[in-house]
Amino acid sequence: MTSDSRARARPSSSGSEVVPGAGPEPTGFADVGLLTPVAVGHDALVSDAAVASALIEAERGLVRAAVALGLAPASVAAAVERGAGELERALDVGALAAASVGGGNPVIPLVAQLRDAVEAIDAHAASWVHRGATSQDIVDTALALLVERACAAVCVDLGRVIAALAALAAEHRDTVAVARTLGQHATPTTWGFRIAGWIAAVRAARAELRAACDAVPVQLGGASGTLASFVALYGEDAARRLPAAFAHELGLTAPELPWHVARRPITRVGDGFTTVLDALGVIASDVALASRTEVGEAVEPAAPGRGGSSAMPHKRNPVLSVLIRSSALRAPGLAADLHRAAALAVDERPDGAWHSEWPALRELLRSALGAAATAAELAEGLTIDAERAAANLALTGDAVVSEQKKLTGAAGAPEAYTGLAGAYVDQILAAVRRDHSQEDT
Amino acid sequence: MTSDSRARARPSSSGSEVVPGAGPEPTGFADVGLLTPVAVGHDALVSDAAVASALIEAERGLVRAAVALGLAPASVAAAVERGAGELERALDVGALAAASVGGGNPVIPLVAQLRDAVEAIDAHAASWVHRGATSQDIVDTALALLVERACAAVCVDLGRVIAALAALAAEHRDTVAVARTLGQHATPTTWGFRIAGWIAAVRAARAELRAACDAVPVQLGGASGTLASFVALYGEDAARRLPAAFAHELGLTAPELPWHVARRPITRVGDGFTTVLDALGVIASDVALASRTEVGEAVEPAAPGRGGSSAMPHKRNPVLSVLIRSSALRAPGLAADLHRAAALAVDERPDGAWHSEWPALRELLRSALGAAATAAELAEGLTIDAERAAANLALTGDAVVSEQKKLTGAAGAPEAYTGLAGAYVDQILAAVRRDHSQEDT
Amino acid sequence: MTSDSRARARPSSSGSEVVPGAGPEPTGFADVGLLTPVAVGHDALVSDAAVASALIEAERGLVRAAVALGLAPASVAAAVERGAGELERALDVGALAAASVGGGNPVIPLVAQLRDAVEAIDAHAASWVHRGATSQDIVDTALALLVERACAAVCVDLGRVIAALAALAAEHRDTVAVARTLGQHATPTTWGFRIAGWIAAVRAARAELRAACDAVPVQLGGASGTLASFVALYGEDAARRLPAAFAHELGLTAPELPWHVARRPITRVGDGFTTVLDALGVIASDVALASRTEVGEAVEPAAPGRGGSSAMPHKRNPVLSVLIRSSALRAPGLAADLHRAAALAVDERPDGAWHSEWPALRELLRSALGAAATAAELAEGLTIDAERAAANLALTGDAVVSEQKKLTGAAGAPEAYTGLAGAYVDQILAAVRRDHSQEDT
Amino acid sequence: MTSDSRARARPSSSGSEVVPGAGPEPTGFADVGLLTPVAVGHDALVSDAAVASALIEAERGLVRAAVALGLAPASVAAAVERGAGELERALDVGALAAASVGGGNPVIPLVAQLRDAVEAIDAHAASWVHRGATSQDIVDTALALLVERACAAVCVDLGRVIAALAALAAEHRDTVAVARTLGQHATPTTWGFRIAGWIAAVRAARAELRAACDAVPVQLGGASGTLASFVALYGEDAARRLPAAFAHELGLTAPELPWHVARRPITRVGDGFTTVLDALGVIASDVALASRTEVGEAVEPAAPGRGGSSAMPHKRNPVLSVLIRSSALRAPGLAADLHRAAALAVDERPDGAWHSEWPALRELLRSALGAAATAAELAEGLTIDAERAAANLALTGDAVVSEQKKLTGAAGAPEAYTGLAGAYVDQILAAVRRDHSQEDT
Repeated sequence: MTSDSRARARPSSSGSEVVPGAGPEPTGFADVGLLTPVAVGHDALVSDAAVASALIEAERGLVRAAVALGLAPASVAAAVERGAGELERALDVGALAAASVGGGNPVIPLVAQLRDAVEAIDAHAASWVHRGATSQDIVDTALALLVERACAAVCVDLGRVIAALAALAAEHRDTVAVARTLGQHATPTTWGFRIAGWIAAVRAARAELRAACDAVPVQLGGASGTLASFVALYGEDAARRLPAAFAHELGLTAPELPWHVARRPITRVGDGFTTVLDALGVIASDVALASRTEVGEAVEPAAPGRGGSSAMPHKRNPVLSVLIRSSALRAPGLAADLHRAAALAVDERPDGAWHSEWPALRELLRSALGAAATAAELAEGLTIDAERAAANLALTGDAVVSEQKKLTGAAGAPEAYTGLAGAYVDQILAAVRRDHSQEDT
Repeated sequence: MTSDSRARARPSSSGSEVVPGAGPEPTGFADVGLLTPVAVGHDALVSDAAVASALIEAERGLVRAAVALGLAPASVAAAVERGAGELERALDVGALAAASVGGGNPVIPLVAQLRDAVEAIDAHAASWVHRGATSQDIVDTALALLVERACAAVCVDLGRVIAALAALAAEHRDTVAVARTLGQHATPTTWGFRIAGWIAAVRAARAELRAACDAVPVQLGGASGTLASFVALYGEDAARRLPAAFAHELGLTAPELPWHVARRPITRVGDGFTTVLDALGVIASDVALASRTEVGEAVEPAAPGRGGSSAMPHKRNPVLSVLIRSSALRAPGLAADLHRAAALAVDERPDGAWHSEWPALRELLRSALGAAATAAELAEGLTIDAERAAANLALTGDAVVSEQKKLTGAAGAPEAYTGLAGAYVDQILAAVRRDHSQEDT
Repeated sequence: MTSDSRARARPSSSGSEVVPGAGPEPTGFADVGLLTPVAVGHDALVSDAAVASALIEAERGLVRAAVALGLAPASVAAAVERGAGELERALDVGALAAASVGGGNPVIPLVAQLRDAVEAIDAHAASWVHRGATSQDIVDTALALLVERACAAVCVDLGRVIAALAALAAEHRDTVAVARTLGQHATPTTWGFRIAGWIAAVRAARAELRAACDAVPVQLGGASGTLASFVALYGEDAARRLPAAFAHELGLTAPELPWHVARRPITRVGDGFTTVLDALGVIASDVALASRTEVGEAVEPAAPGRGGSSAMPHKRNPVLSVLIRSSALRAPGLAADLHRAAALAVDERPDGAWHSEWPALRELLRSALGAAATAAELAEGLTIDAERAAANLALTGDAVVSEQKKLTGAAGAPEAYTGLAGAYVDQILAAVRRDHSQEDT
Repeated sequence: MTSDSRARARPSSSGSEVVPGAGPEPTGFADVGLLTPVAVGHDALVSDAAVASALIEAERGLVRAAVALGLAPASVAAAVERGAGELERALDVGALAAASVGGGNPVIPLVAQLRDAVEAIDAHAASWVHRGATSQDIVDTALALLVERACAAVCVDLGRVIAALAALAAEHRDTVAVARTLGQHATPTTWGFRIAGWIAAVRAARAELRAACDAVPVQLGGASGTLASFVALYGEDAARRLPAAFAHELGLTAPELPWHVARRPITRVGDGFTTVLDALGVIASDVALASRTEVGEAVEPAAPGRGGSSAMPHKRNPVLSVLIRSSALRAPGLAADLHRAAALAVDERPDGAWHSEWPALRELLRSALGAAATAAELAEGLTIDAERAAANLALTGDAVVSEQKKLTGAAGAPEAYTGLAGAYVDQILAAVRRDHSQEDT
């Protein structure tokens, strides 16, 4: 069985392709595809190769920051950049993973390799690698980089979702349909209004996600979070300026304090990605329900080989919705793992809670990357069957406006009893247009 | 066994006593005390009586809003206020709970009782009760009221935590102690810095909690979220103004759209309370570790009957920390329940997900109320034993500054290797002082 | 607002009424009804009063065991039984809850009250109360009693579910319907087979639940689990026989070892109740889907006041299914809380993990009690609409047997393509009959 | 960066090397190592390559079963075995993962490839591949194979844990130490007794795990679980015998009914692995606490490069315990995912719940494989420092036997107040010896 051809197996989604500031393109393919189809082709940003790149980038950023503050000679930066580049090209990620078990994280063996690589270029420069830092400074900063890149890719895909749904909501602004509560026909609504609700939730989730991800700072505290090593090396004044310089080099923000055991930046990101998946989960669940054979109001986009069954030739499964739902169902548990790690972040570095955070965060990022890309595909091809919607509405007959009769003594046609549905659609579409014009300027 | 004396069993915490805008004082006692000691005496704000009050208040607010907009005659408001007051005094909460099973929520039987109560005062006014609303409008708005009140009480207690810890951090700004990573002695730190980290986390969590709770809007959408009933009753223009008027009457905010199936307001509150409990969990876990017999650097406040053992007369258990930890360990799971309910909020009202939200939210509020009050008690009486801290630090001898020697070739006294610890304490204490001066003005 | 009338508010379910070996009938009403309608009227077995009774019963059992082994004079037993009875009648549960905060659990104040009550009867006997025990011995044993009683009540209701569903499966053994996979019409099946699957899952879950609950032993280890106190008081031989005698008095099993920090008995119970709720969740979810207006194949039992809407007079909501689902969605998180408490059960008694177990376990028991009683009501009144099933099946026409055509080159009528459905129904119904005949003998 | 060298990066643990009945050795390396160090080198049994092998093996088993029952000509078996072997050698797993997105699972593209491979050998035989089956039959059966193999490997490592701890308990049968409750010194105990408690929990968990994993049956139901396809192809009698024949070919058990939507086999496995991780979590947490610098009673095994710090040369971190804890903290959430998928297993195949099960199960297996191998390493090298234990015990002086004095009026030496500790150690060691003698025969 060959595995080296996996990287080219599937074109990455447009969302993952061009990520602003994503640095060197990670290679490799996270080997968990067969049992996580939702993420296949969308998770290169969180592969081991991407993690290794981010760790190296964090080390590079720290050296550049020392140079920028005049603490290290300028020649060091060039040597470290070259050494890091060579290491990155030659790195055996599997061997690094194996070597990382002894110390509990990959930084110790990575630093040794990076120092060797730099030493071959400039013997003096090697001593500047990882100078004053602790492993957690590098791991947490690398997580911040991963989060930032995954967020950017997810937001691109959410933009596609919003744009496509906006067009659909406009098209079906006045497509009357029955609202359902507890699964039963309630009163009339419109498909436009239902879709507008989806858009509003995705827009809000995207804004919260961006704010959460932008708020993940670099980590820089040294062994115990006091920056004592940097004070000893560079003096107090330079030590105070170093975190901001480090953040500047990496395009991240500077923390108020070292956050080794104050994990809100990570839990907030977890809450943000889960909020995105909640919003996508509602869309997928609604589409799955509306696609049921007896309902038939929504139809997923067709594609060669999609939605088939290995047994039944006539099947057209709502596979995109199913895959999105499989992610949305698990996200809250992953975010809860992050909160639990936060609540147990004892001492100056905890004895297991921090380590439990990493796989939960990675799996959450992977789920979100996959679900967002899948949702974009779903939204861009989703169609609403207005005739089926009308036929379903008719099933309940006049009773669908029985509330109106009870309240006002008389009832009209269902399409006249949709309240502010149209107005709300217009309101949301206007908000989407404002987003676009802001992005343009 | 008597249960009617429970309400007076324990004085409520000072945090719960005076809550700004909390409306009529809820009576009763949530009957889950024996197995949830952390919340005993602190959870009256989320008892069944408090829930019933909030439901009635939501109905009252809707009537007042109609009057305020000139849609209902002014006389209606007085009759409904009087009827509601009488109902609240006479209400049999257990019977209401029993009657709520049939419809799946308490609003249908409550509305019937409220209409009866109002009708006895003013026959005409009764028809204005619940006019145009759906059960979810009332339940969700009542949840918003509960959240707001619980948040206010929690924030009062968090203020006590911050104030007490600030005094302790100032006292121990320069109390040198050993930092521990993965449970092992690392480099020197100070107790002041450790406490400053706790304060920073609580302050940030409190700010996020307030923002989250302030953002929970009233719910007003009618049967299917379109406000069709209100448009039919009052016309489109009035219907559009009604949510804001409703919010104004209750001191809440107005929603962008009805949020029957867009549950971010609730999940955000859950994330906020969990973030508070994460921060308190770290404090409690650190205190529990520092109280261990071999460590002895932290001592919980003593009180008659506290910390004893039924078997061992010599024991002094860190009971406050233990109880806080028991809440912090469960909060992430409760918040995850809310996210899951959000992801499954299908149709125009879901078939179970919404109902699963209520007990999870209530338990989370109860946990937070209990943990915050307990944390206030802990913080106000916590003492740090500087001598034990010094003795523990000495256990590792010169090795505790081995990093310094490795980096600079020489090592000094541990107390000279605490980096920015003192400066960070000053920074956090200044922030606390700014909070106070802002609250004063 | 009155709360003392709550106990009589709703007749308890038949399942909860007569529980074999349930001891003195607990009074009171768990005050969490308004936001947990599924459990209203079904959770008296886990109320604070029931917890207090179980704690007293554990203390009584320990004294009786000492008497049974000849370690204590026989007269002590009578005095303790009388004192315990008087305490139970007079106990102020709220005050006990309040007093339990100081020690972190209710045993210390309860023992003081029990000793006082016994001393008033027989001064000597009081010293035998709680002799040699630690709080955890009593709390864990009381939890075992609660678990056993809740299990018995749940199993009675599951028996009702099975019996009712068996009748329904027999009735609809050959009612052809369409099977749905990923929400889409697949091939034919029968309602009888679908229901037989529900029965098989409930039967298996009931058997596992019983085994799990029967396996929860008494707890008896003394302060640190070594039984040193009992050895000191009674000698090694008697100390070794005491746990079994204690178990015998309470109708529970004896442990292999004290399990203060080996919590598998509790996690197993949690897994068992969750497995029951998984099985009921599938039934409720299937009924909710089959009740959707467009599907209409299943109809929940009607009852006065059930399934109504506060806004729409025509609505018939599947409220029983909705309430069951609200429990099933939360159960896994509660069971996970128990596992987490187990994994963190450090030292000889943990510093928070044990305390976090209690509310999670109680909430899980409450959910299961409510869901099982509700499921019994659902199963006993559920009807299947064979005509709607046939009409839905016809929607897909010949394609519903396209698999048959593909495999064999020809296709017959849908009702001739149901494979072993009928045979499987017969197999499950035979198993149910075997259960009954075993219970009879 | 190279990734093809990953497979040889780290020798797999002895536990994973020789697995009875594990079939063809899976190649490849699950690409999630850098952020999950606990599993590095231990998770080949759940890699994508292993999943693909298991899927192919399931298809092979189904053909062999048809031949064994005389339904297919014998020549078919040989052709399919050869074709399957060739496919497995040539399979591009990444491409398969990519192709599996369209249908939501890998079976459709895999069957196409397998048919092609078989057709090249024997055109007639190809039609027997996947005959009558549905994708879920193959995926679930492959999961059963993965579970069985992971279970076998985990049990080997648990056997190492038990054997090593038994030797340690025997060595320290009478090493007196202080018991700690709520973190505080309680009464005396022994290290032997503490370790015996660990052993008892691991033994019980292993037995439950084995029972759970042995109970996962093959899946065989056809499109909708009725076996209609097999009845149509082979007649009712043969169809009834087919599941058992299929199970026989794969060394698995036969199900009572098809379990497409009755997921207890999977949740039980999840509960079982979590129970194992609970038991290991307690050991790791106790070791981490006992390794704390101030306590120093337990010392993890040293190894080159283990436990170091990137900043502090003097550090010796309890890395094995930390890594085990990182797994134990997350397992309950993963098992809860499985229960939730079970509770939402609607219709005849659910629309997302089933798909959410796969990654949760795989991650749980990976965690358990890693934690069990790590625990074996920990147990085999763990040392107890009896002198430190004695010194710590002495800290509390006579108070450590204050219970004894209170109960009996006099107190002796701490080592004389350990109750049944020694007897319990003997009891557990005898049980371990019985296990060994049973395994030998």
